[in-house]
Amino acid sequence: MRTRISHACVLTLDDVWHVYPDGYVTVEDDRIIDCGEGRGDGSADREIDGRGGILMPGMVNLHCHAAMVPFRTMGDDCPDRLRRFLFPLENSAMTEELVYLSSLYGIAEMLRSGTTTFVDMYYFEEQVARAAEESGIRAYLGETVISQKSPDAENAGEGLARCARFLQDWAGHDRVRGIVAPHGTTTVSPQALQAAHQLAREYDTILTLHASEMDYEMDAFRKKGTTPIRFLDELGIVDERLLAAHCIHLTPDDIAVLAARGASVVHCPGSNLKAGKGIAPVRELAEAGVPVGLGTDGPSSGNTLSLFDTMRLFPIAQKTRYHDRRLFPAREVVYAATRGGARALHADALYGSLETGKKADLVLVSTEGLSLFPMYNPYSALVYGAGSADVYLVMADGRIVVENGRLTGISLTELKSDLQRAMRPFSEAAEKYRNMI
Amino acid sequence: MRTRISHACVLTLDDVWHVYPDGYVTVEDDRIIDCGEGRGDGSADREIDGRGGILMPGMVNLHCHAAMVPFRTMGDDCPDRLRRFLFPLENSAMTEELVYLSSLYGIAEMLRSGTTTFVDMYYFEEQVARAAEESGIRAYLGETVISQKSPDAENAGEGLARCARFLQDWAGHDRVRGIVAPHGTTTVSPQALQAAHQLAREYDTILTLHASEMDYEMDAFRKKGTTPIRFLDELGIVDERLLAAHCIHLTPDDIAVLAARGASVVHCPGSNLKAGKGIAPVRELAEAGVPVGLGTDGPSSGNTLSLFDTMRLFPIAQKTRYHDRRLFPAREVVYAATRGGARALHADALYGSLETGKKADLVLVSTEGLSLFPMYNPYSALVYGAGSADVYLVMADGRIVVENGRLTGISLTELKSDLQRAMRPFSEAAEKYRNMI
Repeated sequence: MRTRISHACVLTLDDVWHVYPDGYVTVEDDRIIDCGEGRGDGSADREIDGRGGILMPGMVNLHCHAAMVPFRTMGDDCPDRLRRFLFPLENSAMTEELVYLSSLYGIAEMLRSGTTTFVDMYYFEEQVARAAEESGIRAYLGETVISQKSPDAENAGEGLARCARFLQDWAGHDRVRGIVAPHGTTTVSPQALQAAHQLAREYDTILTLHASEMDYEMDAFRKKGTTPIRFLDELGIVDERLLAAHCIHLTPDDIAVLAARGASVVHCPGSNLKAGKGIAPVRELAEAGVPVGLGTDGPSSGNTLSLFDTMRLFPIAQKTRYHDRRLFPAREVVYAATRGGARALHADALYGSLETGKKADLVLVSTEGLSLFPMYNPYSALVYGAGSADVYLVMADGRIVVENGRLTGISLTELKSDLQRAMRPFSEAAEKYRNMI
Repeated sequence: MRTRISHACVLTLDDVWHVYPDGYVTVEDDRIIDCGEGRGDGSADREIDGRGGILMPGMVNLHCHAAMVPFRTMGDDCPDRLRRFLFPLENSAMTEELVYLSSLYGIAEMLRSGTTTFVDMYYFEEQVARAAEESGIRAYLGETVISQKSPDAENAGEGLARCARFLQDWAGHDRVRGIVAPHGTTTVSPQALQAAHQLAREYDTILTLHASEMDYEMDAFRKKGTTPIRFLDELGIVDERLLAAHCIHLTPDDIAVLAARGASVVHCPGSNLKAGKGIAPVRELAEAGVPVGLGTDGPSSGNTLSLFDTMRLFPIAQKTRYHDRRLFPAREVVYAATRGGARALHADALYGSLETGKKADLVLVSTEGLSLFPMYNPYSALVYGAGSADVYLVMADGRIVVENGRLTGISLTELKSDLQRAMRPFSEAAEKYRNMI
């Protein structure tokens, strides 16, 4: 099966930032077999007219808890939600079925907004995998390991066992991959963190966790005269496998450690700004050579799973933090949302740019939207003017998952109705926290 | 003509924050004649089913240069654009026709995203008025007075004369009102600022200008041992007519002066953050009792004219600035974008909330969008999840200007084609600045 999208403004995100103003991309099965300016050679089984569109690589969401859809708009302005009602509500009302349906909904939201790869950590992660597998999205999924009772484990030991089983069950799957996801630096014991790292080494995969995010986390390490990153490094788990989420509060020494060990960072401005937590020092991370990609965080954090929203916040927060308008010009932002994400996952050779031989993960963005005219700079239009509503077509691993702005493989009406039904006990349990939400 | 929208979640924004979860609003001609829970009494000429929608007051954009559409995505990452290429390019290529067509395009973008009132300052402002009058939007328009050559005047004297003529020509118009718009605190001579203020008094109208925004502006006043607000106050022009745009850099004394004089402030986070200029101290302004509304600034600043984008940025920037998640809960944000804007224009009694007797300026937002589910808090859904693409219907001054997401009175295809033609000489002139853009 050969498909060609032509007459689009193609942003390749290749090593020399090739842009084809009237370009094409030809896809065979799951791979890009050709791209360039003009119409391309030979015939295709399917020709898609990309006129008036921007064709970009599929986006990579490096940090998500897709199944947390039921929490959206709950207590958005409430401090320390995590301990006050998120943890308790999860433990009392998060079920396998709810994780499956919510994840599928979250994945639908991601595909619909041009995300073709995501990293997720939650509970009942096998249900997230089931949803990811069905949907066509590329996924890196980690069963959360936490040293307290969780919806699917009594303690970190049980979490580690579930995580190991998950890694076994999904080993060798092309699109859905297992990773290791200890919760955070203060919520997991040092022993369990090391066991998690051992598991990541054993299965040769990514280890992701929340780090240098929370005020109480920073206070705890300050009292011990150290930092979360320094602590992780002393445990031996800061290495090229590490994908550290948030990293809002970093010392110059932390940044040097991350850079020296080859670790990557997920920047989540939508989540961090809304929580009033601060603005991560991405300029300094970038200067030190630490790969930084973007994450939406969960649907109650951001509050959308659209990386277009994240792309808009990332540069304006950095420009503001450093009082310098020149920082993170739009094309670097598009890079962070695509190839930068792939690089952080060591998958740069496989996807993240529109180049011959790469996986066919791509997004065609319509420029019909009122705020997308004029367009002196297509990167700028994507970052500052576009949104999920402008996404016309999405191909994930060679399969068209969104066309004409609609999901091809998921019936939203049915899914929403199933999810509403499954959410009833959850919403009843949430009543208990009404004064906070 | 009587129209009723029913079965919507009605956010009235009245004094006690009434919300009707299954409510209606009845409109006769240009006024709301009834609203409440249920279906309402009597018949209507037209019944609109608002099921699944949120009905909110039309939004008020307090600071815009709608005609600057041709500048969008031009040099987004270039410092000091204003003096480096915006002023020169305006002077060499901004024409009456371009102002008319660009303004109409900008107004289309505002209506489409739920804005029913806007404040504008630019050149050839009579062309902006022509576009506003045709479109159905409510407008407060000020011919810019500036002490340098501008596209339509050689100096401030000519600008003042144009401004006076504009005020005369539009006196008594119900929907399109003249205001006075000296450019800024360093770009207009003290004499011209005072003459502008005299004009505002004479015509009993608003005076708006850029204040405490630019680094070079702050430096200039710092050297003189004062501040822009203190300077304006010494000229006698800080009073209840003043609508000061930006106000990023304020001292506690500035805030006290603004509060004591009854002046209002326009907060433009989309513009300020992207320029890396800083985050205005809105918490302190609010604590001092200064009315604060929201502005998008021009289309090359934000880069959209959608107040949904501004609503999302406002609270997250404040929460971050003050490191406090509780600040500006979502309903206060919706207030700032609606009734707060009306209050800043001393028009609170006329529009800005959904109450019997008020002007019929309203927006029906669909909650079909993926990021609008679930919805424990409708204000939160509007602020953190909604965008212009979710706007289903807009009524401005009793007239339906957007229905089913489409503009009823403006042909976008035709307008875009006219604008593209009119922009040709502008785009050619822009070539000179290619290295910056």
